[in-house]
Amino acid sequence: MGPIQAIPTTAFYVPARNLTDSHPKPHLPNSGFPSRLDFSCCWSRSACKVGSFGSWVVAPAFNLRRVARVMEIKNEEAASLNLHDTNEDLVDKIMYDALVWSSLHGLVVGDRNHQRSGAVPGVGMVHAPFALLPVSFPESQWKHACEVAPIFNELIDRVSLDGKFLQDALSRTKKVDAFTSRLLDIHGKMMELNKKEDIRLGLHRSDYMLDEQTKLLLQIEFNTISSSFPGLSCLVTRLHRYLIQVYGDNLGLDAQRIPENSATTKFAEALAKAWKEYNNPKAVVLIVVQPGERNMYDQHWLFSVLRERHNVTAIRKTLSEIHADGQLLPDGTLLIQGAVVAVIYFRAGYTPTDYPSESEWQARSLMEESSAVKCPSISYHLAGTKKIQQELAKPHVLERFLEDKEDVEKIRKCFAGLWSLEDADIVEKAIKNPEFFVMKPQREGGGNNIYGEDMRESLLRLRKEKSEEDAAYILMQRIFPSVVPTFLIRDGICYKEHAVSELGIYGAYLRSKETVIMNEKCGYLMRTKVSSSNEGGVAAGFAVLDSIYLS
Amino acid sequence: MGPIQAIPTTAFYVPARNLTDSHPKPHLPNSGFPSRLDFSCCWSRSACKVGSFGSWVVAPAFNLRRVARVMEIKNEEAASLNLHDTNEDLVDKIMYDALVWSSLHGLVVGDRNHQRSGAVPGVGMVHAPFALLPVSFPESQWKHACEVAPIFNELIDRVSLDGKFLQDALSRTKKVDAFTSRLLDIHGKMMELNKKEDIRLGLHRSDYMLDEQTKLLLQIEFNTISSSFPGLSCLVTRLHRYLIQVYGDNLGLDAQRIPENSATTKFAEALAKAWKEYNNPKAVVLIVVQPGERNMYDQHWLFSVLRERHNVTAIRKTLSEIHADGQLLPDGTLLIQGAVVAVIYFRAGYTPTDYPSESEWQARSLMEESSAVKCPSISYHLAGTKKIQQELAKPHVLERFLEDKEDVEKIRKCFAGLWSLEDADIVEKAIKNPEFFVMKPQREGGGNNIYGEDMRESLLRLRKEKSEEDAAYILMQRIFPSVVPTFLIRDGICYKEHAVSELGIYGAYLRSKETVIMNEKCGYLMRTKVSSSNEGGVAAGFAVLDSIYLS
Repeated sequence: MGPIQAIPTTAFYVPARNLTDSHPKPHLPNSGFPSRLDFSCCWSRSACKVGSFGSWVVAPAFNLRRVARVMEIKNEEAASLNLHDTNEDLVDKIMYDALVWSSLHGLVVGDRNHQRSGAVPGVGMVHAPFALLPVSFPESQWKHACEVAPIFNELIDRVSLDGKFLQDALSRTKKVDAFTSRLLDIHGKMMELNKKEDIRLGLHRSDYMLDEQTKLLLQIEFNTISSSFPGLSCLVTRLHRYLIQVYGDNLGLDAQRIPENSATTKFAEALAKAWKEYNNPKAVVLIVVQPGERNMYDQHWLFSVLRERHNVTAIRKTLSEIHADGQLLPDGTLLIQGAVVAVIYFRAGYTPTDYPSESEWQARSLMEESSAVKCPSISYHLAGTKKIQQELAKPHVLERFLEDKEDVEKIRKCFAGLWSLEDADIVEKAIKNPEFFVMKPQREGGGNNIYGEDMRESLLRLRKEKSEEDAAYILMQRIFPSVVPTFLIRDGICYKEHAVSELGIYGAYLRSKETVIMNEKCGYLMRTKVSSSNEGGVAAGFAVLDSIYLS
Repeated sequence: MGPIQAIPTTAFYVPARNLTDSHPKPHLPNSGFPSRLDFSCCWSRSACKVGSFGSWVVAPAFNLRRVARVMEIKNEEAASLNLHDTNEDLVDKIMYDALVWSSLHGLVVGDRNHQRSGAVPGVGMVHAPFALLPVSFPESQWKHACEVAPIFNELIDRVSLDGKFLQDALSRTKKVDAFTSRLLDIHGKMMELNKKEDIRLGLHRSDYMLDEQTKLLLQIEFNTISSSFPGLSCLVTRLHRYLIQVYGDNLGLDAQRIPENSATTKFAEALAKAWKEYNNPKAVVLIVVQPGERNMYDQHWLFSVLRERHNVTAIRKTLSEIHADGQLLPDGTLLIQGAVVAVIYFRAGYTPTDYPSESEWQARSLMEESSAVKCPSISYHLAGTKKIQQELAKPHVLERFLEDKEDVEKIRKCFAGLWSLEDADIVEKAIKNPEFFVMKPQREGGGNNIYGEDMRESLLRLRKEKSEEDAAYILMQRIFPSVVPTFLIRDGICYKEHAVSELGIYGAYLRSKETVIMNEKCGYLMRTKVSSSNEGGVAAGFAVLDSIYLS
């Protein structure tokens, strides 16, 4: 949702400045390839051993194996393999070509070390972090994830129409979570005004992890606002296909096994169709952005297709700028610097920090009151909260919104265990076995999950205090994805690390009154994160963009 | 030849840190557009006035007018126009879109402020400096420049075959210029060995300026080695076409008036054809590069087309690496890390600093002795020196190499006045009127020309000392190109400056024994440089990539 998480890992990475004579030095191969650290000292047999992985509960590690025959890794070999023995020159070559390809094809982000990289395009650019090769993924699970995307799209639309359900389900949360409370206020106001959204546009992303023990594809969350990386994820897919085309013979891989990624074009198509429904040829698409957005190129890819393929103009504004420049006409028309806004596409506004003052909330309200198509509307936004995710997982709730029993079954299959903290039995279980649970705050933005001993202490405190603060959280079954050795490339440096992956399936939904104009799955995002033994959660370490190789 | 010159100009640019309350502050428009300095204070009527341009001899300034109706500049208005009055928002929008386009489409270079940007691709990238809009250029002169390209290609090939001519013409230079001397030594050794280059490949660029007073397109130099920017120049052409497509209605411009630029594809085609002539499907193209090349993406565009369109692999090596890894087999085959080299393409080796030790010279010799196709061979390299340019400009010399009188005439039309320093009359004239001459050192690399009072003093000293050092230089007629107001974009900042432009026409020539396989003009490079009154020469200030708009 935000930019790629960039928490440095310390597990296996030996920074160059700490290298002593007993450590191999970073080397610059003669070919002019960039330096990468030699990991032979720190990527040892013991570190790879199953079960030795810190406090992790990783039963049969490496079962979801990374597609990297260049590393000659097989399941049974992984535990005893010293990666330094493999064809290092080939990895260097692939990495060099990958970095060049990224630079020439706009697979870039703003460098966090460059002061102006979030403010001005074209300066302080660095390649987006990526996995060198795609990760293996079972075709059946991939198909299932694609199949449920339109069902989730439809589900969210129906949930969004049930204002009472949203208000009721979130009523306890409202008391303790100021952010959700403000969203509910706007939502309540729209209900009072009996405001209807005739044209409804959703650009979603449903995130999953493949649970190693159950072999189930379990949903982590469903994003209805600001689903990021439609632009860059397509580029990583193209990058991996390119690398496999060039090095296919060496790797024994087939580029066709990487599914096509249509996220950019499909999202642009959906925005263009919504713009068309609004039916004002002079109107623009308003992109709500965060100030200093280093992930701007991901967004620009989308707007670039929007303009070049659909001849629709997009304007980028922060909430603060919208507050200053936005104007609502009596008929509901939203003007921004004199231009009529047909569609509002949020790439900001999903986290409390996006609203530092009342101005930003006023801007949000202004937009919600307008006749512009909102992506998302306040109802869509609320329908994507974790609390609603947990409510929908309760027995018989899905059936309220979906008639088709098969659809219900397919959706339910993706649900991990989700519980309210009002459920005393589950809280008791989580206190006894914290390793099997994760405590998730209601608000978005990532990185705030509570694990292990921290979670146990939090639960004990909440129980003791009988605080209503418990409504700010949900409990979720801890998912244990496979941990696989991976080459992660960041800042031009290759890290050999153990990593876990999370699959996001994009979905687009557009409806005009009774007509569903678009309801499709739209490409995917694979994110792979370093899993460090120093951290409790799967979000530890830094993350890279990835794609999948169907197995 | 090297990277873009990046000498900061101080003429009209007020650095942000020097802005006081009496100066407008840099502004960040609400639209999220990047900051650019407000120049209203320093881009005044008086600064634009014809004749007030420092010590410049600029007769009717602005006659070659920049295509920028956005600035509403016309010849007669230029002197009295305050650019701050024009549509600033539109310029901001165009600039923002241009920066985004550059970032997404690989119009990038390594940032000189980033330590690793020359060593590792994908890090420390910044957009290449560019002019916001193309510069107006007369179609007749454009056609002439294109027409003579194949004639120059043929001329260089013929000159290269006349070893005695090269040695004789450069014999005095040899005594005083150590660099040319080393090149001549290698050349002499090849003559002794009676080494023939059956397959000859030239990737040239002929650089011109349009002289304001005479309206003649005069040749500045002819580059036979390391002609840079075939990759990025094509991108700037595409950028300008894109901007005019988007903003054409506002600007009243037609994208079709910008000639297509085929430099990348044509150069790649020539390299691929030379590779094919060598006739070893397993062989590679060796690119000789400078260590720490920040202009690497320009090169990578070329290799990328070479690989993707022609399935030819390129390897990048520095001279030092070639010395370490190169191996010459008894039959003349050059091996680099075990791979047979079919073609050697020099993007280094043209300047003395590329040869810091004997190793680099040995590498150059090794390559010259090999059977690989050299681009350029030592003969081609020498044929492109300024001394040879000056020799060819002497009466009756062209006729030694070209039979067709019309060809001779067309070529000669491009020659500026060129003289040896042995010509006492000319030296006398240059001492008396230094403003009409420029003193050019024999060696390549740019930035070493001597102008004005410095030149006068140098000439007086050389004459007094009767030193043979004079052979290290030639005298050239000073060309006075038009000076036009321009928006130059560098580091995400827009500078409104007076600038001059230099047109380079790329040419490719490939011959196998008696068969001319390719002899074509191959796209173009327009470079536009800030002309500052603080500096003597047209190379003062920084330069940007540009393209042309035919008028």
